[in-house]
Amino acid sequence: MMQAFSTRSLRVDENGEFWILDQHALPQAQNWLPSNTVDELIGHIQSLRVRGAPVIGLAASVLLAVLAAQGLGQAELRQSCQRLRQARPTAVNLMNNLAVMAKAVEQVNYPQALAEAAWQLIQEDQALCAAIADAGLTLVQPESRILTHCNTGSLATAGVGTAIGVLARAHQAKLLKKVWVSETRPLLQGGRLTAWEMGELGIPYQLLCDHMAASLMQRGQVDAVWVGADRIAANGDVANKIGTYNLAVLAQYHKVPFYVAAPSTTLDPQCPNGEAIPIEQRAADEVRGVSGSFGACNWAPDQAPVYNPAFDVTPAALITAWVLDTGVYRQPPLL
Amino acid sequence: MMQAFSTRSLRVDENGEFWILDQHALPQAQNWLPSNTVDELIGHIQSLRVRGAPVIGLAASVLLAVLAAQGLGQAELRQSCQRLRQARPTAVNLMNNLAVMAKAVEQVNYPQALAEAAWQLIQEDQALCAAIADAGLTLVQPESRILTHCNTGSLATAGVGTAIGVLARAHQAKLLKKVWVSETRPLLQGGRLTAWEMGELGIPYQLLCDHMAASLMQRGQVDAVWVGADRIAANGDVANKIGTYNLAVLAQYHKVPFYVAAPSTTLDPQCPNGEAIPIEQRAADEVRGVSGSFGACNWAPDQAPVYNPAFDVTPAALITAWVLDTGVYRQPPLL
Repeated sequence: MMQAFSTRSLRVDENGEFWILDQHALPQAQNWLPSNTVDELIGHIQSLRVRGAPVIGLAASVLLAVLAAQGLGQAELRQSCQRLRQARPTAVNLMNNLAVMAKAVEQVNYPQALAEAAWQLIQEDQALCAAIADAGLTLVQPESRILTHCNTGSLATAGVGTAIGVLARAHQAKLLKKVWVSETRPLLQGGRLTAWEMGELGIPYQLLCDHMAASLMQRGQVDAVWVGADRIAANGDVANKIGTYNLAVLAQYHKVPFYVAAPSTTLDPQCPNGEAIPIEQRAADEVRGVSGSFGACNWAPDQAPVYNPAFDVTPAALITAWVLDTGVYRQPPLL
Repeated sequence: MMQAFSTRSLRVDENGEFWILDQHALPQAQNWLPSNTVDELIGHIQSLRVRGAPVIGLAASVLLAVLAAQGLGQAELRQSCQRLRQARPTAVNLMNNLAVMAKAVEQVNYPQALAEAAWQLIQEDQALCAAIADAGLTLVQPESRILTHCNTGSLATAGVGTAIGVLARAHQAKLLKKVWVSETRPLLQGGRLTAWEMGELGIPYQLLCDHMAASLMQRGQVDAVWVGADRIAANGDVANKIGTYNLAVLAQYHKVPFYVAAPSTTLDPQCPNGEAIPIEQRAADEVRGVSGSFGACNWAPDQAPVYNPAFDVTPAALITAWVLDTGVYRQPPLL
């Protein structure tokens, strides 16, 4: 049976039941949702109740261990693995973690092998986050005012996070003056989750609408941009939450360093460049309004046609450095 | 008495009562609000129930004529004029129009003079809009996909609008393939008003979150950007709705033409450059959530600190051309 554990956003209890923290409900409510079937977890992933490239991969891995402990056979586990792979097309950690789990399914004592593999992935992710934070710290100047996008902290990983992990470490080292949090329309991961996490970490911050980053940089108020990644192609191009590319262009124009923090498991050496990364298009209603546990509003005309890609691709040329668990890279190749 | 008239967003009825169309309630509801006192109109301006630099100046002018017809004396009218000047600090049309009205207050038959002056300003604005549209049409290529920000149409002026006026004219001339409408957080003038106006005009459009413009330009999907202006400094720097500068940087990076459409009354020759333009900072709750007749939600942590300038400044160097009622200018000086 999968051992009991708890991170900020994943939990297996003493009965072997799997729960995810509902990130759709944060920061207004901290609800834990049962995630003991493939349907449940895929639903949670697609509604972004569990989100963040690293933690999605871990959640899928934990579920396979939980299913095996429930008595599922190898054929059903293989099928479950296949269905989970397709829950979100852009994040590569999911595919990478499930490749590890798929091997465990083939072991004779596969329930034990899956439980051990899932636990090892969690521990590895925590170690990866710590190593990213160590590497990133070397790039943070005293009195820094750092802008971050989306949410890349302890909700999105099993550890301290990727970009936010660096910020948390820099805060401990008293190097941070302030974090600028861009709200990250349409789903508001910045306005809801990162703002909340900054409060939890005691880091001074100010929230802004995404396009206001330009005005801040124009006024010399941003010393660096730190973001995470959903997939890094072989040439260093980075897919990340929509809006990241906008910040990269602004950073280049204003000569502000632009850093990508990610575990090396986010690298996809099979993917030659950003153009080969599949980009998920999401529902029009996300842009026509907002919804969450905080309420729901639609302000646009009914049936307003919408453009709503979930991610964009930042070309390697706009990236000052890639900060991985294996160190700081100023240019490709990474690793 | 002020003569009866009706534009898309302003109306004086047969009884001399002044009404403004509640732009806060659009597109869900079309409510006309009484605006027969300085307090009422300043409240409507500050809550953006009446908005758009040209129409704010006209509304304040009409109110002075209405107040004179109600029997207010010259001393009270001078005081009213002074209070109205301060309703929004960035838009210069308000100051320019009120300078005209202040002269009319000093006439012997000032009620008549104010009524005539207000009516003349309205007619002038309609003529200015038509002339801007004529000038702008010369810059629109066939099959254009044009991105616009905020709302610059018939709601924001007494005529066809400024940037949207150009789009409407280009649509009539069958030059438009599509308009990209950026939603314009925090107050969603794009998502609510421009989306609605595109529907009314029958122009094909797609709505996007503001930072998605970068991804569109990266994919070669934007042929030009057209925006309005709240104030144009002597050196050509332009203050406009927050987010405009972001688009200007993106347009420069992607070699997309960036056009500013405005009446010549938006020029402020007393203002040497963008740094001298006062920028209004607005309430934190606008960024912590949304509110309007469509409902209200706050998703951010309570008391989340916020950065919320109402406008930004686009330097002249990023502007391809200024399109005024007096013609197209490729570089300053304008006029």
